[in-house]
Amino acid sequence: MDHAPASPEIAHTHVAFEDGIALECGVVLKRLVVAYRTYGRLNADRSNAILICHALTSDQYVAETHPLTGRPGWWETVVGPRLPVDTDRFFVICANVLGGCMGSTGPKDPRDTDTVESWGIDFPPITIRDMVHAQKRLIDHLGIGRLFAVVGGSMGGMQVLEWAATFPASVFAAVPIASAAYHSAQNIAFNEVGRQAIFGDPDWFEGRYQAHGVIPARGLAVARMVAHITYLSEQALTRKFGRRLRGGQTLSLFGDRFEVESYLQHQGSSFVLRFDANSYLTITRAMDYFDLAADHEGNLSRAFAGTPTRFCIISFSSDWLFPTADSRAIARALNRAAANVSFVEIASDKGHDAFLLDEPDFHRTLAGFLAGCAEHAGLAA
Amino acid sequence: MDHAPASPEIAHTHVAFEDGIALECGVVLKRLVVAYRTYGRLNADRSNAILICHALTSDQYVAETHPLTGRPGWWETVVGPRLPVDTDRFFVICANVLGGCMGSTGPKDPRDTDTVESWGIDFPPITIRDMVHAQKRLIDHLGIGRLFAVVGGSMGGMQVLEWAATFPASVFAAVPIASAAYHSAQNIAFNEVGRQAIFGDPDWFEGRYQAHGVIPARGLAVARMVAHITYLSEQALTRKFGRRLRGGQTLSLFGDRFEVESYLQHQGSSFVLRFDANSYLTITRAMDYFDLAADHEGNLSRAFAGTPTRFCIISFSSDWLFPTADSRAIARALNRAAANVSFVEIASDKGHDAFLLDEPDFHRTLAGFLAGCAEHAGLAA
Repeated sequence: MDHAPASPEIAHTHVAFEDGIALECGVVLKRLVVAYRTYGRLNADRSNAILICHALTSDQYVAETHPLTGRPGWWETVVGPRLPVDTDRFFVICANVLGGCMGSTGPKDPRDTDTVESWGIDFPPITIRDMVHAQKRLIDHLGIGRLFAVVGGSMGGMQVLEWAATFPASVFAAVPIASAAYHSAQNIAFNEVGRQAIFGDPDWFEGRYQAHGVIPARGLAVARMVAHITYLSEQALTRKFGRRLRGGQTLSLFGDRFEVESYLQHQGSSFVLRFDANSYLTITRAMDYFDLAADHEGNLSRAFAGTPTRFCIISFSSDWLFPTADSRAIARALNRAAANVSFVEIASDKGHDAFLLDEPDFHRTLAGFLAGCAEHAGLAA
Repeated sequence: MDHAPASPEIAHTHVAFEDGIALECGVVLKRLVVAYRTYGRLNADRSNAILICHALTSDQYVAETHPLTGRPGWWETVVGPRLPVDTDRFFVICANVLGGCMGSTGPKDPRDTDTVESWGIDFPPITIRDMVHAQKRLIDHLGIGRLFAVVGGSMGGMQVLEWAATFPASVFAAVPIASAAYHSAQNIAFNEVGRQAIFGDPDWFEGRYQAHGVIPARGLAVARMVAHITYLSEQALTRKFGRRLRGGQTLSLFGDRFEVESYLQHQGSSFVLRFDANSYLTITRAMDYFDLAADHEGNLSRAFAGTPTRFCIISFSSDWLFPTADSRAIARALNRAAANVSFVEIASDKGHDAFLLDEPDFHRTLAGFLAGCAEHAGLAA
């Protein structure tokens, strides 16, 4: 199969930091680009900013049509006028993560200022903390001393926790959703399956596929397929597809005979058109390495010692990728740190992806928490 | 990567039926070979036979060293002298499933009696019912009119249910373990990920890899890896591996840094040495197509109308591939059919694979059920 390289060049709104960034792994990137989008208006005292942190495969196009796919923003149910993250009231910022492929510095970029050769597989390992440091540069650049809130689901929730732990004075309120303070062995295992699928693709070329003008499309699609299953629930898959067959009843070894199969294949094949395989490897690795307690002598509550931040931890009952137990562990650690924390498990049968879907209880919880915090922060209604 | 073809030729004990077998899909295989192993002794009135039905990737080597891998039989914890399936008392039979790669007719075999060219990808689709029909030929050949019991886990449990539904007079007792009466959308989805990984392998050659002297090793390994995760539980993975790193602490994008990764990679790479990719496709498809209720006007209890068989349905609490709800649905259908049925959920945190592991409660349940049935069947103790 021939495939055009993913992600034709698009001009993303961005800021470039010519002094670069020092990464946790020791490498210094000589130049740092942070691509971002904003919604709503920053108020006069710069106190109404909400940073949204995106998940593994989403990006900064939160609440507008995606420039590459033409599809709606990934959180248009949550972010917008009179929505839970109300852009009539708040100034909303979302940055493409460091290591991503939507304009922020990542493996697709030239490895040096005087070459066009891309980093590819040689892009240094990135951590969740590196992502947060890059976002902090953006926030400083925007002249925002304290974020009213940092909000994110899944890997976005990991960034929220890291923000609160690393820059407590800069985070008035934090909402980690469907997330965890570390990546579990099972989640690492699923990521590893995806990575091995990419490595096994004939167009992988040891990570130098860009130089060959191809992408490891089949491997990346398989990685997306297995990940996608983990974002749903058995109930959601059963409700959506059950055992419905496409076409006839004749037994056949091939072809997308079950609807769930063609759905998954579509998820895989559309994903490779918008996402870079080396970014996928970089970001899944960052998730695997995330272990906030390990960074604080194995004691998660120490990460939040003396925190002034107000937390709202949200999980979904049918999420088996980041189960409620993971969120409860965060809430317990925050309680031990005497933090201001509320914890809500939303009853839903939609699995991990529930945070992206129409879940009225979740939306009410988020809106209510932000409204309460706004009052405490003295933000005008 | 160069790989020798899987499964060097081994002489498996077998019986050949030269009149062949008519498959559900309409194809007639001109010759049927059933490879099998037996343990214990058939009694004088041929009433003490237990048929073990194996799961997706196991085979007839239940209780002895595997001739290919040199490893212990897959159910040596359960089948043997004074074990739950007591070979001092019962005559135990296990046949490699039709479509398999350990001696029974399957994709590796010549497609016709006058050619050496193998079926490969053209092997006709097989159903669980076809597997059971092939086993029935073996049982008839052995001169056994009624099996004392049919026992199996996972896909083996599907065969147990099909046996009871298709040949009720031939099954005194039936024990489907960690199984279901149909494959769920989520399970089909996981199988599809594995199939797509195989199809994406550069050594796949549209299923004609045997003619090229290679095997789609990387794709088949990825298929095994993702399946293997579903056989375990999050708790089991956490207990076994947690977030332990192999080697040092330095962040690195590559290498098997987490123990769970190298474990999975080992599972994948050892699997491809013993299993044929086309067999994997054939058998996963058979599981996907299994839907016993659909074969009985959508009413599972009709599959068992008037059944004389005694059933013991066993599930494991942490099995998320074939969750307890699936077993409970079988038990309910049997109750509606006024069948003799007991249903036991074993508390275990070992996931689906619990049926293969040292689970004393499970072993006691199985032994107790078989002992009770033996009494009712008038078998000498």
